[in-house]
Amino acid sequence: MREVAVIGIGMTKFGELWTKSLRDIFVEAAMAAIDDAKVDQIGSMYVGSMTPGLFVGQEHIGALMADYLGTPSIPAMRVESACCSGGMAFRAGFFEVASGHTDVVLVGGVEKMNDGADVTYALATAADQEYEVYQGVTFPGLYALIARAHMHAYGTTREQMAAVSVKNHHNGSLNERAQFPREVTVEQVLNATLVADPLTMLECSPVSDGAACAILAPLAIAKKLSMPVIKVIGTGAATDTLALHAREDLTTLKAVKLSAQSAYKMAGVKPTDVSLAEVHDCFSIAEICIVEELGFVEKGKGGPFTEQGHTALDGKIPVNTSGGLKSKGHPVGATGIAQVCEIVEQLRGAAGKRQVKDPKIGIAQNMGGSGASSVVHVFKKE
Amino acid sequence: MREVAVIGIGMTKFGELWTKSLRDIFVEAAMAAIDDAKVDQIGSMYVGSMTPGLFVGQEHIGALMADYLGTPSIPAMRVESACCSGGMAFRAGFFEVASGHTDVVLVGGVEKMNDGADVTYALATAADQEYEVYQGVTFPGLYALIARAHMHAYGTTREQMAAVSVKNHHNGSLNERAQFPREVTVEQVLNATLVADPLTMLECSPVSDGAACAILAPLAIAKKLSMPVIKVIGTGAATDTLALHAREDLTTLKAVKLSAQSAYKMAGVKPTDVSLAEVHDCFSIAEICIVEELGFVEKGKGGPFTEQGHTALDGKIPVNTSGGLKSKGHPVGATGIAQVCEIVEQLRGAAGKRQVKDPKIGIAQNMGGSGASSVVHVFKKE
Repeated sequence: MREVAVIGIGMTKFGELWTKSLRDIFVEAAMAAIDDAKVDQIGSMYVGSMTPGLFVGQEHIGALMADYLGTPSIPAMRVESACCSGGMAFRAGFFEVASGHTDVVLVGGVEKMNDGADVTYALATAADQEYEVYQGVTFPGLYALIARAHMHAYGTTREQMAAVSVKNHHNGSLNERAQFPREVTVEQVLNATLVADPLTMLECSPVSDGAACAILAPLAIAKKLSMPVIKVIGTGAATDTLALHAREDLTTLKAVKLSAQSAYKMAGVKPTDVSLAEVHDCFSIAEICIVEELGFVEKGKGGPFTEQGHTALDGKIPVNTSGGLKSKGHPVGATGIAQVCEIVEQLRGAAGKRQVKDPKIGIAQNMGGSGASSVVHVFKKE
Repeated sequence: MREVAVIGIGMTKFGELWTKSLRDIFVEAAMAAIDDAKVDQIGSMYVGSMTPGLFVGQEHIGALMADYLGTPSIPAMRVESACCSGGMAFRAGFFEVASGHTDVVLVGGVEKMNDGADVTYALATAADQEYEVYQGVTFPGLYALIARAHMHAYGTTREQMAAVSVKNHHNGSLNERAQFPREVTVEQVLNATLVADPLTMLECSPVSDGAACAILAPLAIAKKLSMPVIKVIGTGAATDTLALHAREDLTTLKAVKLSAQSAYKMAGVKPTDVSLAEVHDCFSIAEICIVEELGFVEKGKGGPFTEQGHTALDGKIPVNTSGGLKSKGHPVGATGIAQVCEIVEQLRGAAGKRQVKDPKIGIAQNMGGSGASSVVHVFKKE
């Protein structure tokens, strides 16, 4: 298997991008990544997107984006795995480069959620239609169940969950691409409109438009370029039951744990080797569960760990330095690639006010549904 | 790059499968493929499906199918490229095995089109929403434009196009999995209800439910099994403008030509080396264009070539021995993998009444939209 590196990144601002279409924002991010990589030819393309069919009535967006990017003949396909469509597109592109078949592969993600579709219905297609959605459950409801179970089993408090949002909004306030680049306080989080008890609006990631792209190439090509070389040293993916009620324990995100173990093993690293992580904080409780599953803290201690500041920009293990899904925004298909953009920027030492000190290894963890699929990538500065 | 072989195949009957759900039919095909391969562990999974979100309100079907297959932790993702979602899922799985990362990969395709959704709207999301669909064009209309252009440029006749349906229905009459396993005559085709002038109902592939799966493994594993070894010696994919009017020539399916050239090159074969082909006959005219683009006959001669019987079961180059999309059925996401099932069965010499004589090399060509994406795989009996 050939060694693979990320040689370019690019993304749009996340938010309500009313004046731009689905194809506009993908092309904007792709052109930024191509400019960053300084390559003149793309060999093939993977586009992560959850449900452009339901959001804007357009499927077949692999070919569409190849066309509008001005590369209308290259191989292109879309990858979908609900909210980890972007991360899975990255993984598929990684295999194509690693196999030796293709040198330069563009992996991207895009979603346009603010074009008038019924967003709650569209997102709910990531849950089990027959056993969850038809019964009336939505994603805030599913994560509220996880939150209540975590509070019951481990004594996690609402203040600890609110601390996730406070931290991520602080980080996002330093990120010009964030949808909500402003600070919030614990009190504001706790007193915001209740969406699904105990989760308030300030604990739920927003509805966003946006796109992000990265360019992959063999290590040999990356070394000839002027940028710091960022290697992809591990990929791990796993799945779990689609329906939350079918799991042994509501507080365990098994797919996250297994995907991390698999990525760590391939990379030959331990959780303590990791300098920073972007994780899938679709709801505040998700980040608490994930820092546990990634092995940054023992099971059940994610709440206090966060409240004590260990995941802050200057903490033991900075988590979601970009602002995360909560503050940066969550255009679902784009999120997994936007995480990669942040990790690469940090490892390059180019993250400006958000820069963590001298990071060596970063990970990106992207998740679909209520944790039914998860993908983890490990990056290392050469 | 490791050499890759197909070690198992399985599919459902295609048709109106009212008593089975999306997950039921995928699992049925996957279990058949697993039984055929006699493997006890699957390393990862790719599920091709065009738009389960619009057809049955369910996305995230990679994880869903892994769960219902009884393998709820393996990596799984969905691949979409309109009607060539299945073929693209095969390609993505091929790269994972070829890279050396994973040994046994299940690649499948599934679609449930008869569950009450607006099928014409759902399929139209494969065309360009902004420049085609909003103007009222549907797929029968787009292929009718191609047919008229081909008739004008090359003198192709309605009888020659009808000959595609007659041949494919004959082949399908020998296939117990076909949705419409019965013969039709040229007169019946020409006198059937006009769908989009000049295409009649018997020149349009039907609305189908169905699933198909194949299992990929490195050559070294395939050689240890008792079945004939069927190697994947070439993969090629390409794209074209999504909108038909944006192309230089309506009768040229550039993505088909480029994907074939790329697959032939990788395989080291010429069109004259090919023993049989499964191609994407979504409409009669499509097969005529495709046999030209694949290099079986020169440009413009696809009509007479078909009418003269050169693509029949006992012709120079048998095309769509399975019955093709027209007679076997076209559950869009499943089609690309069902083509692989037919080629593997033929190369194994296990195609029963449809068996062509001693085939050595077979190709599967799967297409999306009005030819905006195409993928070709070349198979060789070891």
